[in-house]
Amino acid sequence: MHPQTLLALAALLAPPAAALNLWPAPASHTRGNATVCLGARFRIAVPRDAPADLRAAAARTQEGIRASRHTFLSPARGAEFLAGGCAAYLDELVLAYSGGRADTIAAAATLPVEKRAEAEAYTLDVGVGGRATATAASSLGLLRALTTFENLWFKFHPKAHGDATTYAPYAPYHIDDRPAFPWRAVLLDTSRHFFSVATIKRQLDIMSLVKLNVLHWHIVDSQSWPLALKAFPRLAATGAYSPAEVYSEAQVKSIVQYAAERGIYVVVETDTPGHTSIIYDAYPDYIACFEKRPWTAYANEPPAGQLRFADQKVTAFVSSLFRSIASLTRSAYFGTGGDELNVKCYDEDAPTQAVLKANNWTLEDALKNFTVQTHDTLRGAGKTPVVWEEMAIAHGDTGLDPATVVQVWISSDSVKQVADRGLRIVHASREYLYLDCGQGGWVTADGGLNSWCDPYKTWARIYSFDPYNGTTPAQRAQVLGGQASLWAEQTDEANIDGQLWPRAAALAEVLWTGGGDGGFPLSAVAVTARLQDIRYRIVDRGVRAVPIQPEWCALRPGQCNLAG
Amino acid sequence: MHPQTLLALAALLAPPAAALNLWPAPASHTRGNATVCLGARFRIAVPRDAPADLRAAAARTQEGIRASRHTFLSPARGAEFLAGGCAAYLDELVLAYSGGRADTIAAAATLPVEKRAEAEAYTLDVGVGGRATATAASSLGLLRALTTFENLWFKFHPKAHGDATTYAPYAPYHIDDRPAFPWRAVLLDTSRHFFSVATIKRQLDIMSLVKLNVLHWHIVDSQSWPLALKAFPRLAATGAYSPAEVYSEAQVKSIVQYAAERGIYVVVETDTPGHTSIIYDAYPDYIACFEKRPWTAYANEPPAGQLRFADQKVTAFVSSLFRSIASLTRSAYFGTGGDELNVKCYDEDAPTQAVLKANNWTLEDALKNFTVQTHDTLRGAGKTPVVWEEMAIAHGDTGLDPATVVQVWISSDSVKQVADRGLRIVHASREYLYLDCGQGGWVTADGGLNSWCDPYKTWARIYSFDPYNGTTPAQRAQVLGGQASLWAEQTDEANIDGQLWPRAAALAEVLWTGGGDGGFPLSAVAVTARLQDIRYRIVDRGVRAVPIQPEWCALRPGQCNLAG
Repeated sequence: MHPQTLLALAALLAPPAAALNLWPAPASHTRGNATVCLGARFRIAVPRDAPADLRAAAARTQEGIRASRHTFLSPARGAEFLAGGCAAYLDELVLAYSGGRADTIAAAATLPVEKRAEAEAYTLDVGVGGRATATAASSLGLLRALTTFENLWFKFHPKAHGDATTYAPYAPYHIDDRPAFPWRAVLLDTSRHFFSVATIKRQLDIMSLVKLNVLHWHIVDSQSWPLALKAFPRLAATGAYSPAEVYSEAQVKSIVQYAAERGIYVVVETDTPGHTSIIYDAYPDYIACFEKRPWTAYANEPPAGQLRFADQKVTAFVSSLFRSIASLTRSAYFGTGGDELNVKCYDEDAPTQAVLKANNWTLEDALKNFTVQTHDTLRGAGKTPVVWEEMAIAHGDTGLDPATVVQVWISSDSVKQVADRGLRIVHASREYLYLDCGQGGWVTADGGLNSWCDPYKTWARIYSFDPYNGTTPAQRAQVLGGQASLWAEQTDEANIDGQLWPRAAALAEVLWTGGGDGGFPLSAVAVTARLQDIRYRIVDRGVRAVPIQPEWCALRPGQCNLAG
Repeated sequence: MHPQTLLALAALLAPPAAALNLWPAPASHTRGNATVCLGARFRIAVPRDAPADLRAAAARTQEGIRASRHTFLSPARGAEFLAGGCAAYLDELVLAYSGGRADTIAAAATLPVEKRAEAEAYTLDVGVGGRATATAASSLGLLRALTTFENLWFKFHPKAHGDATTYAPYAPYHIDDRPAFPWRAVLLDTSRHFFSVATIKRQLDIMSLVKLNVLHWHIVDSQSWPLALKAFPRLAATGAYSPAEVYSEAQVKSIVQYAAERGIYVVVETDTPGHTSIIYDAYPDYIACFEKRPWTAYANEPPAGQLRFADQKVTAFVSSLFRSIASLTRSAYFGTGGDELNVKCYDEDAPTQAVLKANNWTLEDALKNFTVQTHDTLRGAGKTPVVWEEMAIAHGDTGLDPATVVQVWISSDSVKQVADRGLRIVHASREYLYLDCGQGGWVTADGGLNSWCDPYKTWARIYSFDPYNGTTPAQRAQVLGGQASLWAEQTDEANIDGQLWPRAAALAEVLWTGGGDGGFPLSAVAVTARLQDIRYRIVDRGVRAVPIQPEWCALRPGQCNLAG
């Protein structure tokens, strides 16, 4: 038979159970059983009219495949796929737009969430005839195809001296892919600890590798204000941990641009009116119960201190602050916070009580006034507000616009309540997706404290997350996606990589691949080998993702299951 | 008044509550309130007859102080200590032996445990007259003085351009120091994951900085055999994860020497007869129930497989193996294991049952025979055996020599039982000192598993550890010390620094400083500021110790206590 016929036959005989070694798994694919090797002259051909950021992405992909030392995870390190040599050599990956000329990748960062999934769709064919093709309607879709393509390849290092072989098992492939959810986020808190621009960009690289598409940047909080704003210079001057632990406006923009070129939308959060104690040092009149003791009575963690939001000059200040920060971002969304308001703080705050009395307001009335005014400002700047769930549930009517995006965090049980209010949801349940849990309590007490949200959320726990939890089929469209949150009380440059990876990747597959025909929850047992593969790929790129099992297990899929 | 008189007066007026910023705290000290700065010509003068390793240690100390960028942890970053300028400049630290010429630091690595504390004792005086002196009977004692001296210093970086100042607050100091416990250990498991020689040496550097003095090297286990022995080449050839993940005999010796020069004794453990599945690939006849399923019935973790210890040729093999490995080490101690034997494995193993029948032995009889023979071999090689607690408790009479050191791990409650048997104890309770706990279960199951020994052991939990737990005053001398154990199922190069530090440092103080007049448990609240200091010092040295609190708390001692 002709070799091509033989290969086609091999494809037909491929065991259907063996999944492609890709993370996240594509929406649909077919594959064969041939081993394709990368030709020495391999190149990625971009469309003639490709924008610069797509050209750069293609160059990064080619370099990433060249630089990788990642091997297949088996005791023989993949030798089993090369026993018969290379069935074919791939010389070219051709990228093509399915429509006419497309915009930049970065331009997609301004898209409303409804248009994201469509913009991320692509098809990828890797044949055994020397050529692969990726097709998408947008540059963003071609970027997604590139990361899929990159993760197909392994290196094989011969025991004797000699060059490594770059190969992909199970060719040919046909992949038809698009995300199940349009909002696939990581939250990073840069207030409890500061992270350098380089460290944030390193996380963006890996987010892009696993097709996460939102960085929710919790940039400031009660502990520090690292954001140096030209219009409000005192905030960082008094609120940053040190002059070195500051983001300039140019640096924020550079992160936003870097993310956008990698298909990631940066949603900056300026949490108000709680979580604002640090503002006192710049604007003492604006903060109630500043560092009041015992802190346990006035805040969920030290130090106490919240904005006097009933005060009109504070509301005007926050509106102006939002406008200033919003101007640094491209995303159509902006985080305004609204979590963990301490009522006792205001009950004992004479200036707040005076305003309430003068206006004949309850505290909730004042909160609605503050929210409506500051959110109106944001909408005027082209941004849709993103709030924490308390603003939709705990505080009654806070005047939220129906377009508001609500981040559910206290419990997955809140999803239904928010859906019933007709609002849209980013599901960030602490029960599954809080990456800070399980490090023990950080508040000092003799004998030590447990973590407030024990236990540690393992990748398998995260993988069992149900984004829709409790909603009706009709409400499911309101669930935009989910978010893994890295609160940084016990995380800094020393351990950020391992706190995020590979666990955030587990969420990436839940949200990209979705529940499929079986629905949620997904089975961790079925996918451990692929998770191991992406974990070692992340490490190979110099990011210190933690090991999920002994190396012995990584090399022997299925031998370290509980039912084994 | 004369400046010296003023300083002496200041010393008298120093608030007694403020501890010296040292970790571990010295056994006793007095201090003043003057700020001493390091002179530009500062040097460390070693005794004329000092051995090379003490000279090297002095050079490292001087370079460590020079290279440090560590600042005092306060919002002003220590400016408060330099408001009045430097009270004096220190030009020289003079090291001196209290007796005659002393041996090398490394030579102390062969000392029996009874002689260790004496060899580690030293006095250190840092005056305000330009000179400091350290005195000890041994080079090892002077090494301990050097690490104390190094940790006294801070850098202050002026806001304007200019050189940093190196200073020590609260001078003059008189420090009289010696350890409360002679065995202060870290266990490192290099089987579940491999760690490079450089990574191990990096941990030894920090162990020495906080005066830990034993590396219990759990070098092999069921998952991999990274130890390349000339006499048994097949073990690593078949049992290492890869040819790159191997320790040569020369590398083991280099680690032993590196540790010895830093006052650390390497106790190599070759765990037998359980935890040996990997030996099968080299010696299939020696292993029972190899990779038998379900693994849950035959082992505490995958894969199953244990030595057929009833077989005389296996006993002879292990004796020979012990002799070979023991020859690589200097310490007077050698770990032989003995934990987690699975009886069902042997009940179903025909070769084992045949031997038992032929000898009219129970399994316990065979275990005693194996233990006596292999331990006799070790004693012949000059090593005292170190075993896990099952060998002293669970298995009845295993023929242990009274000199045997027993590592208690299952529960602190076992300490009393082992003491009652008249044996000596290294207290390594999983309830306080297992650093792997709290990472979640690594065996794969849908929805994820919790950690087998939840919760995560925080530094404050470790700090509340009572080495003597339950023993009578007369039995306390049998408690040699304690051990923080880093089992490496979920730890590799990516996260080893953060799994060990600063938590192992918390144990270092419990064991070096001891209970003092108040006894155990110690109060974490009282010492958080000092723990923060050593954590930032460790990070400053390039080791990624995890943060224990937001930086806001690190800069404000006492403001992040639960009772605050």
